[in-house]
Amino acid sequence: MTVHDENTSTIDQDTALPGVFELAQQLRVDAIRCSTAAGSGHPTSGMSAADLMAVLMARHLTYDWELPDCPGNDHLIFSKGHASPLLYAMYRAAGVVTDDELVTYRRAGSLLEGHPTPRLPWVDAATGSLGQGIGVGVGIALAARLRERERGTERDPYRVWVLCGDSEMAEGSVWEALDAARRHELGGFTVIVDVNRLGQRGPTELGWDLDAYGRRAEAFGAQVIPIDGHDLAQIDGALHSTASSSRPTVILAHTRKGRGFSEIEDSPDWHGKPLPPETAERAIAELGGLRRLRVAGRAPTGEKAAAVADNQGPVTLPTFDDGGEVAPRKAFGATLAALAARPDLVVLDAEVGNSTYTNEFAKACPERFLESYIAEQQMIATAVGLSAAGFKPFAATFAAFLTRAHDFIRMAAISQANLVVAGTHCGVEIGEDGPSQMALEDLAMMRAIHGSTVLYPADATATAALTATVADLPGISYLRLTRGAYPVIYPAGEEFPIGGSKTLRRTDEDEVTIFAAGVTVHEALKAHDELQGLGVRARVVDLYSVKPLDHHTVAREARTRAVIIAEDHHPEGGLGEAVMTTLADHRNPAPLAHLAVRHMPDSRTPAEQLDAAEISARHIVRAAQLLLSEQQPSDASGAGSSLVGQGLDRHDGHAPPDHQQHAEGGGQEA
Amino acid sequence: MTVHDENTSTIDQDTALPGVFELAQQLRVDAIRCSTAAGSGHPTSGMSAADLMAVLMARHLTYDWELPDCPGNDHLIFSKGHASPLLYAMYRAAGVVTDDELVTYRRAGSLLEGHPTPRLPWVDAATGSLGQGIGVGVGIALAARLRERERGTERDPYRVWVLCGDSEMAEGSVWEALDAARRHELGGFTVIVDVNRLGQRGPTELGWDLDAYGRRAEAFGAQVIPIDGHDLAQIDGALHSTASSSRPTVILAHTRKGRGFSEIEDSPDWHGKPLPPETAERAIAELGGLRRLRVAGRAPTGEKAAAVADNQGPVTLPTFDDGGEVAPRKAFGATLAALAARPDLVVLDAEVGNSTYTNEFAKACPERFLESYIAEQQMIATAVGLSAAGFKPFAATFAAFLTRAHDFIRMAAISQANLVVAGTHCGVEIGEDGPSQMALEDLAMMRAIHGSTVLYPADATATAALTATVADLPGISYLRLTRGAYPVIYPAGEEFPIGGSKTLRRTDEDEVTIFAAGVTVHEALKAHDELQGLGVRARVVDLYSVKPLDHHTVAREARTRAVIIAEDHHPEGGLGEAVMTTLADHRNPAPLAHLAVRHMPDSRTPAEQLDAAEISARHIVRAAQLLLSEQQPSDASGAGSSLVGQGLDRHDGHAPPDHQQHAEGGGQEA
Repeated sequence: MTVHDENTSTIDQDTALPGVFELAQQLRVDAIRCSTAAGSGHPTSGMSAADLMAVLMARHLTYDWELPDCPGNDHLIFSKGHASPLLYAMYRAAGVVTDDELVTYRRAGSLLEGHPTPRLPWVDAATGSLGQGIGVGVGIALAARLRERERGTERDPYRVWVLCGDSEMAEGSVWEALDAARRHELGGFTVIVDVNRLGQRGPTELGWDLDAYGRRAEAFGAQVIPIDGHDLAQIDGALHSTASSSRPTVILAHTRKGRGFSEIEDSPDWHGKPLPPETAERAIAELGGLRRLRVAGRAPTGEKAAAVADNQGPVTLPTFDDGGEVAPRKAFGATLAALAARPDLVVLDAEVGNSTYTNEFAKACPERFLESYIAEQQMIATAVGLSAAGFKPFAATFAAFLTRAHDFIRMAAISQANLVVAGTHCGVEIGEDGPSQMALEDLAMMRAIHGSTVLYPADATATAALTATVADLPGISYLRLTRGAYPVIYPAGEEFPIGGSKTLRRTDEDEVTIFAAGVTVHEALKAHDELQGLGVRARVVDLYSVKPLDHHTVAREARTRAVIIAEDHHPEGGLGEAVMTTLADHRNPAPLAHLAVRHMPDSRTPAEQLDAAEISARHIVRAAQLLLSEQQPSDASGAGSSLVGQGLDRHDGHAPPDHQQHAEGGGQEA
Repeated sequence: MTVHDENTSTIDQDTALPGVFELAQQLRVDAIRCSTAAGSGHPTSGMSAADLMAVLMARHLTYDWELPDCPGNDHLIFSKGHASPLLYAMYRAAGVVTDDELVTYRRAGSLLEGHPTPRLPWVDAATGSLGQGIGVGVGIALAARLRERERGTERDPYRVWVLCGDSEMAEGSVWEALDAARRHELGGFTVIVDVNRLGQRGPTELGWDLDAYGRRAEAFGAQVIPIDGHDLAQIDGALHSTASSSRPTVILAHTRKGRGFSEIEDSPDWHGKPLPPETAERAIAELGGLRRLRVAGRAPTGEKAAAVADNQGPVTLPTFDDGGEVAPRKAFGATLAALAARPDLVVLDAEVGNSTYTNEFAKACPERFLESYIAEQQMIATAVGLSAAGFKPFAATFAAFLTRAHDFIRMAAISQANLVVAGTHCGVEIGEDGPSQMALEDLAMMRAIHGSTVLYPADATATAALTATVADLPGISYLRLTRGAYPVIYPAGEEFPIGGSKTLRRTDEDEVTIFAAGVTVHEALKAHDELQGLGVRARVVDLYSVKPLDHHTVAREARTRAVIIAEDHHPEGGLGEAVMTTLADHRNPAPLAHLAVRHMPDSRTPAEQLDAAEISARHIVRAAQLLLSEQQPSDASGAGSSLVGQGLDRHDGHAPPDHQQHAEGGGQEA
């Protein structure tokens, strides 16, 4: 991608500020040019920050633009991702994006997307969902800390700079992030807030009240430096003073949106709007026309390539007695402890490590355990930053509270992050604590994440194997971990490939197939035995790999007179819909029952919960009997007595009557 | 539920503090008794706050315990929901829960759940997911403000008190909430933080550093009062000083977990553990044994029943020219403006009102429009509070950013909230802005919410009708609103029942059925015409009601030689899986194609996006031709050339290879 334009003059750290001002003007001009060419984008949100970025880029940022992966490179995160025209103008000034490429902004096939993504080698993480950049930056800074500690030095190899908008300071996640930066004493970590006082639909909450922002940032432990964001000397001084700080720094820059073009400067009417061509011409003229300045940048010292961490340390996985009872979450913790030998592994927890059993890893490897306290958004943001810096993070908490970080997990997929999310206390199985603590939508959430792998082991052996497997799996992996202790049903050494399944009970005379995962596997096995006592042969399949699903086995094993799916999750988006999608795809003729949690649970014992949700062995047996007793449907619509809708009559009266009526439609009306 | 024990002595606002101390001890004893009887629960987290609640309940809380719905009642929210044993002990002291009921805590059938829910008439909103109570309290306080403004008085009819734990102050949502309380100048709004310094797995981040908490709360605009949380006089003084404050108050109470029982007081080993029976006996003895104190409480003045708001004002919905092009989000805004006549309607937006068009409502009814700035969690929390106080909130932002509030929406369902969530800019259809701004998992998220209604209108007429319908619909409704302008395909006055659908093209000779919703309805109509030119008759069904789905029509209309589902969403948890579930249930024999967004999008025009995602008319036509050209399957597994997995080969290489291989399995291996 690198090019060298002709007739360029070079800007370096010794260039006087008037020269840097020329760079700032070039950035403004280029931000206008690419967005006008695209016919969309946010030039004005970049123009306000152009002076800040020009001084940073010319005098403070250490970066070898030819080697984006150089371990000594600083990291610059545009938390205000909509200011991408400014970022791409910087890339052009660095000589890594050509002028021709610049004007492909937002076009099909261009890597210069509306909001930056790691498809560009200089981007660590995708931004565009506001309030996430500081948190990711904390993770990248912590990676430097961990790596240096590992090597026995105390010098961080690089610095992290985050450019924020002022509107996004309204996101609570910003304060979780600043608190984490303070707690980890990330001196040199610098947040630059472009306070242009104008959000999308008008003035921001705090406008130009730098004092208000300052009080908050200081209360959260940062060194705060308010400046005029268009005074290059003030900018330079502020950036200098960050280097020596033992605390993270928040630079509050008073700026003007659309700075540099008198017609639109500080106007509330120009958010997210490109300048029409004629207007752009006037703007470029006022800004001094096109320039070909090139920023040399400060090259990093030290290695040019990242030292490859040796992950080959022999790992002995814990084994569990066949027949004994072990909680999957406990097997998870024991396996993490065993994996502590891998230097790339980092474990994070949201203050429930004694419940998720990540405390086992903390004991084995305290230096690579990060306590996130009850801040799930920051826990995931830190993990994304660690992943961008080459570590493999495992982030764990109660599965229900992972919904708190949904937007961060969604963005992590766009960021091409490699991380493991582990959720314990899933489903009604948790018992007395009640619905607020039960994850009943986590499978839907995690299956819908692009490129995700979703695993739900039934026992300790499967949990240990899958925990080890995901440590080497690219993308975002989710481990759904049951709270209670259940029999170990798999022998040590059993293999659990991603996309596989385990057929636990099978004969050629089976009349019904029971698909289950996690806790319902144990209910299915009980149901198998009860049905056998009733003279009914049942097949039991453990679908531990919820995504990717073992479509092939599901299609093959479902060829019985009836099919039952039992899951400890709401009916939508979980195991049931995954399996039924395959059955529809394969036009499976058997009548179906989908047992899932269709009511609003309350407090009762785990066994009572499973029974109240009608996903227990007793209800699986009942469903099998009902399905096997029915006639084949007399018309093509079938389902005259399907049980897919079963349990829907047991709603808590909260949902509207016609809702329920229709929701039952599938089962009842045809 | 009300009872009157015998031999009780009464506590009222004139009772001297030594008497109130007796009440505090009773609360501790009862918190121990119920959790020990249950064998689970958090007695120690209640014991630290017992003095705070005793003084509040006896001297400051205005509440008619016989009339939980009395409009003059104060509102007390236990944000630290795990301290439910203390809350239920307070209910016993108020005489609304009997001693026998108290010891049913956490048992099957008891309303005294592990964490409080509105199944109890004195609970406004469910808690248990930490960091949400203050935000909901803000909504309840704003409801008072709105109601009084409506009546022309300035006196708020009640006050809101929130009890928080110290661990939960790590959640960013807490700071979003305090900022909202400050912005709305909620004088009298009081947050009491029980700083017992011990979280679940040990010391909290800030321990007993009240100054650190205080600096943060002050920076966010609160009056801060640090006290000894076990000194009744200090507590009483602090609570008194909140009444006159023009700012929200945060009382920081230095307390000791397990206070009152020397064996466990301030011990890190007793979080979330009930006392064993013998230990409980010693504790109760040390606390002075059982008591039968009854709190009279301060009865509110004014009406005893809420004035029923007149929602019958005539509403004239906007109409749109058949054939014209209108963006659904624009029709949404116009309809909201028309609904402004309803005094119970409140609209919230996360600083994108000029994109969601809620600004149309803001113009029509500024007093009932709440700008939430970019704080989606607080936007939903405010809506939940407004709902608890009898208003009908509509909360809108870009659909992608609703994932930020997933945990709040999940809890809103447990809170039995009645609210509408509206998400614009859904799917790849948004075009150039790229994946960070695209909601591709929102249908999965919202379908999995208990009791939710999920609607995805295809045009302006449907949008207007459904926007008006959800204003009267109980539970949580979701409106998925397309960004771009599309032809109006329905005439004014067309009705769109919840759970219904519209068959737009149909003949008895149809060979293929196309199921679509939202933007893909327009692609399906184009495909219909193209196929007609190719001599293929296609049926087109608009499934605007994604949940509940019109199972009956889906099953009936799918009886063609082939079925295609096209959706602008990831393949998991959306329209496709809902439809395929019905098809599996009804054992539909037709081969299927599920067209969904299976790749990671980039930036390009909306039309290019739909095509790149292979959900455009062209791909629907191609899928129809492929399905119709294939032989019926020769074996029961079928799907030899199913297209359900189509597009999976177009992954971005990010997901692990074996992942992809397995993901394709359903379509390829059988």
